[in-house]
Amino acid sequence: MKYCCECGSSVIKKIPENDTFHRYVCEDCQTIHYQNPRIITGCISTWEDKILLCRRAIEPRYGLWTIPAGFMENDETTQQGAARETLEEAQAEVAELQLFGVFNAPHINQVFVMFRGNMVNDHYGATHESLETKLFTEEMIPWDELSFPVVRECLKLYFADKKNHHYPVHFADVIRNKQNKVTINRYS
Amino acid sequence: MKYCCECGSSVIKKIPENDTFHRYVCEDCQTIHYQNPRIITGCISTWEDKILLCRRAIEPRYGLWTIPAGFMENDETTQQGAARETLEEAQAEVAELQLFGVFNAPHINQVFVMFRGNMVNDHYGATHESLETKLFTEEMIPWDELSFPVVRECLKLYFADKKNHHYPVHFADVIRNKQNKVTINRYS
Repeated sequence: MKYCCECGSSVIKKIPENDTFHRYVCEDCQTIHYQNPRIITGCISTWEDKILLCRRAIEPRYGLWTIPAGFMENDETTQQGAARETLEEAQAEVAELQLFGVFNAPHINQVFVMFRGNMVNDHYGATHESLETKLFTEEMIPWDELSFPVVRECLKLYFADKKNHHYPVHFADVIRNKQNKVTINRYS
Repeated sequence: MKYCCECGSSVIKKIPENDTFHRYVCEDCQTIHYQNPRIITGCISTWEDKILLCRRAIEPRYGLWTIPAGFMENDETTQQGAARETLEEAQAEVAELQLFGVFNAPHINQVFVMFRGNMVNDHYGATHESLETKLFTEEMIPWDELSFPVVRECLKLYFADKKNHHYPVHFADVIRNKQNKVTINRYS
């Protein structure tokens, strides 16, 4: 951030009065520009005994498989966002979404709010965000070609829950450090 | 938003290619400025059989009672943010935070990620954000002087959980419509 989006003047980085964090502050109109984490919301979408995955048509992780998910938008709930992303990325309609888990990713300033939900029919397909979309049984999951650690974690937890016939809400940190090592701290 | 924070030129509102939402886009450098919901994180902080509440020293809802909570910051997890807000607003240190619930507030583009945690000692006090801070038993809660619907909902759910000796992760929408009517849709 170099300029104030309200008045167009230059911003500087400083700690405002009564604050403890450095913020971008406009030198002219004094607007404080807060920057906060963003929510990624997505859905483990099921049809019979299978899960729908998308092969990414966009960077990062072009060509790797992912659970339909993306940035939550204004004016929607997390579950509405998850259903919208599933439609946008995989042409699939999901219903009866249940909260699956919350996953912190502080190294990228994101919080994943993930759901599970049934597809209302077996329609799905490629989109401009997905090279292909496909239903996978547990045995078919391409574990070595998954896009992100949080996707792997969600799928592992989902299949364990399914075996246990018990679906608690999961809560974990999924952190990649500067040496590219992924650490998962599971709390529930 | 009137100006591009990257180059200082004017922005216009339009739907970018391959998008479905109106965004602020810079007419000069073409940067797309996304606007997304923000996370409020807080903690139902307990000491013995009491809960710590803060009387707000800031608008909105100046003078009303609230659970310590605030905007999640970059580079932290939701539970770190909740503990930080409790320290900043009430001078209280909490530990062993457990995920309490996720509450959508789409009418204000916020998602509340709330925790419960024990205070590590009985130190707490007023801050520049809180006129006063106080420990309340259930009977003492000032139900008619609470700041926000989500605060009331969290306290109601917490005391019900406590009676049941069972703490599921709650998930609900807490929505205030244009007629100022609050609707709560509980999912779990």
